[in-house]
Amino acid sequence: MAESPITPRAQDFAAWYQDVVLQGDLAEPAEIVKGCMVIKPNGYAVWELLQRELDQRFKATGHQNVYFPLLIPQSFMQREAEHVEGFSPELAVVTIAGGKELDEPYVIRPTSETIIGHFFARWIQSWRDLPMLVNQWANVMRWELRTRMFLRTTEFLWQEGHTAHSSHEEALEEVLRMLNVYAEVAEDVMAIPVIKGAKTQSEKFAGALRTFSIEAMMQNGLALQAGTSHDLGQNFGKAFDVRFQNKQGQLEYVWQTSWGVSTRLIGGLVMTHSDDKGLVLPPRIAPVKAVLVPIYRKDEERANVLETGARIAAEVGAKLDDREGQTPGAKFFHWERRGVPIVLELGPRDLASGNIVIKRRDTAAKQSVSQSALAAALPAALDSMQKDLFDAARRRLDNNTVLANSLAEVESILADVTAEKGGGKFVMAHLKDDPACDARLKEFKATVRCVPLLDKFDGGGKCVVTGEPVERRVVIAKAY
Amino acid sequence: MAESPITPRAQDFAAWYQDVVLQGDLAEPAEIVKGCMVIKPNGYAVWELLQRELDQRFKATGHQNVYFPLLIPQSFMQREAEHVEGFSPELAVVTIAGGKELDEPYVIRPTSETIIGHFFARWIQSWRDLPMLVNQWANVMRWELRTRMFLRTTEFLWQEGHTAHSSHEEALEEVLRMLNVYAEVAEDVMAIPVIKGAKTQSEKFAGALRTFSIEAMMQNGLALQAGTSHDLGQNFGKAFDVRFQNKQGQLEYVWQTSWGVSTRLIGGLVMTHSDDKGLVLPPRIAPVKAVLVPIYRKDEERANVLETGARIAAEVGAKLDDREGQTPGAKFFHWERRGVPIVLELGPRDLASGNIVIKRRDTAAKQSVSQSALAAALPAALDSMQKDLFDAARRRLDNNTVLANSLAEVESILADVTAEKGGGKFVMAHLKDDPACDARLKEFKATVRCVPLLDKFDGGGKCVVTGEPVERRVVIAKAY
Repeated sequence: MAESPITPRAQDFAAWYQDVVLQGDLAEPAEIVKGCMVIKPNGYAVWELLQRELDQRFKATGHQNVYFPLLIPQSFMQREAEHVEGFSPELAVVTIAGGKELDEPYVIRPTSETIIGHFFARWIQSWRDLPMLVNQWANVMRWELRTRMFLRTTEFLWQEGHTAHSSHEEALEEVLRMLNVYAEVAEDVMAIPVIKGAKTQSEKFAGALRTFSIEAMMQNGLALQAGTSHDLGQNFGKAFDVRFQNKQGQLEYVWQTSWGVSTRLIGGLVMTHSDDKGLVLPPRIAPVKAVLVPIYRKDEERANVLETGARIAAEVGAKLDDREGQTPGAKFFHWERRGVPIVLELGPRDLASGNIVIKRRDTAAKQSVSQSALAAALPAALDSMQKDLFDAARRRLDNNTVLANSLAEVESILADVTAEKGGGKFVMAHLKDDPACDARLKEFKATVRCVPLLDKFDGGGKCVVTGEPVERRVVIAKAY
Repeated sequence: MAESPITPRAQDFAAWYQDVVLQGDLAEPAEIVKGCMVIKPNGYAVWELLQRELDQRFKATGHQNVYFPLLIPQSFMQREAEHVEGFSPELAVVTIAGGKELDEPYVIRPTSETIIGHFFARWIQSWRDLPMLVNQWANVMRWELRTRMFLRTTEFLWQEGHTAHSSHEEALEEVLRMLNVYAEVAEDVMAIPVIKGAKTQSEKFAGALRTFSIEAMMQNGLALQAGTSHDLGQNFGKAFDVRFQNKQGQLEYVWQTSWGVSTRLIGGLVMTHSDDKGLVLPPRIAPVKAVLVPIYRKDEERANVLETGARIAAEVGAKLDDREGQTPGAKFFHWERRGVPIVLELGPRDLASGNIVIKRRDTAAKQSVSQSALAAALPAALDSMQKDLFDAARRRLDNNTVLANSLAEVESILADVTAEKGGGKFVMAHLKDDPACDARLKEFKATVRCVPLLDKFDGGGKCVVTGEPVERRVVIAKAY
């Protein structure tokens, strides 16, 4: 992929996003397969780091990884009424296999509640088998009409946790525990501040009693749903006859949860931190934390600079960019676009002074430190960058969260907002949890993102649609 | 899954295998999806360890992970004549998506040479872009008629490496480099001795110039192809127009390789080491290396045993099985079936003497050591077990490798061998690499497994079919 200019954010945010993803070696569109992408080396390396961060937290909270089939008998999808209604339009269907028309077609999993429900029914007999806590890392497929790399692709990679419990209370604890894990990884690892909340009835997962999500704000003010955790109640238990004998010897349906995050998070990472020069990666999610670029003009400088550079790079765990036939400028440009947090510059003058230059990707600030102090200065610079990126995103979220006390106000605040032009806000307004109220927001292409778990505002008020009293303000925004 | 008896190997090897897989919590059949299985927690944990061992070696040899789409346009499969012929009968085809009949159906990848060829053509322009070294971890699907858990399932998990080079020589080096990586992981990590060799023309990968494989011998004497590495020549380069400008400024087709191992390796692991009591895992591929089972009868013993047990388990990195309501006997049985290499037994008498008992899964040998010596004795016991398992498998392979100098001899050696009854041999005979010669072996359900890279026998001789001179003996066996 040849390097080409990056569209400035102010000119066209959507074009900027596409440019950053392409030039950052994160992904490229696979037009020959509708709505799919190829995840390229830098993008996949970010995904591997994210998997590791999530996976260790899933295991620490008692979950075990498993793997269920990709294909699901079509009839399974129909067992839960809301589930089939929600997912039917998006299914990819296998009708031929091994050269023959199939008696019953299979769908490629859009999510695995149904097939896992089938196996839970085989595995769970007694309260002693509960809780059952499993997770799978998998690809899933939803045939979407409008796609964007990472944010919405027909095939995507994700994890899906599925658990069964003996009481609704315990299931709800699980739902919130995993929502907190997602929030922790988003904030502490990806430096993306999020709002935890409950979805309205019209925005919940098809088949859930209630869906919780973490919502993030992109640089254009649009919302991104970054992870969801569902209280499935006994809906799938009833659909797949998953019953257990309780301690009193009675048969009961299990209480289930499911929760997932996907490669979509990488899209959120790009749109939270990157700039007009390209990708910016928070250090904790950067596959390469620091690159040392040796600078020399004359041949006699070369050996000394490379030798010292190699020694320093090895000492501090930086990557040495000793490629021949590339100018230092070309190398800086290369790593800048790939979002590497720190570039270390080492030239003949640094050699003479015993110093080395630390340059941060986000601020472009340079700091000269003595080579002997680098082992301490580099992690400190990485930590500062991690914190500064989070703080900047947090400020952006706070500064673009506004109150509205009427539907007209909500509409006017969001009137001109598009993914391309930006200017989006999180509008905090009172709204009843009623599909009719959600529907009014559709008129100006906004949605309720969530009812925040933590009420930072002024509690109750009157619904801006119906005038009825509601307990707290909800987040209304245009969203991906 | 309730625990039930394990069929002895001598009675029915195939039934024994199925029992070990089920009782070892490795997998279970998913009858509702033809030929598929659910990979259960212990099986997936083994796969994760295997992935880590392989992945670090792929990265150390310069490969980067990427991810290509699951679906491949059907027409792509037809571009390479041998490839379409080899894979067409096994394809699962998506004909409907998003509620509509598709203009061009997609196939679920049976392997990704074609779609990767398409992208290599976009990415590769010049010799400077070469070598291109990528790998993906993915699920693939081949609609097989006869399936067995892990060994042959319609969907399986694998990695597929794909590389492009500027010369055939360099591509061949890559093919052998990765074959060696596979042999190293099989032997050093999984304790499975393998024979590295080249496939005959009639057994090679559909679309390759030449296929290399590692072949292992199971306890019933059947062969298992455990990994393959393909020299693709310029076949896919020509099919997908992957050309580069060489240093002389001329356009040339690239030379490609591909190589893969899959969850099939777990089947090989089971059939190499396990016994009539269930799964046996070599320590290096065991998710849990050691479990400490506390033994007590009286309540007043309980606190002391548990306290000391917890301390020791933490010190040596063992898992403490402090489950209530389970007898020590039930716990021993539980871990035995799951293949845990070492069980540490700690009871009141051990507490009094300051000792602890180390019990090995493979030999059932018990060794009492002082608690203070355990930190050294445990890793030593794990190392011995790893070595002993490999040595035993090596001896089995050597003892069941026999020479044959006529086709009648080959036939008679393999006459009564089946997967169920066992008694299989690796028969070393001279055979010409000609599909007509391979075909003669089909009469008695055997195949050429490979032409070994290392000639351990007596060099050239006369083909047992044609009488023509050939350079070395090949491995003939019945196989999975």
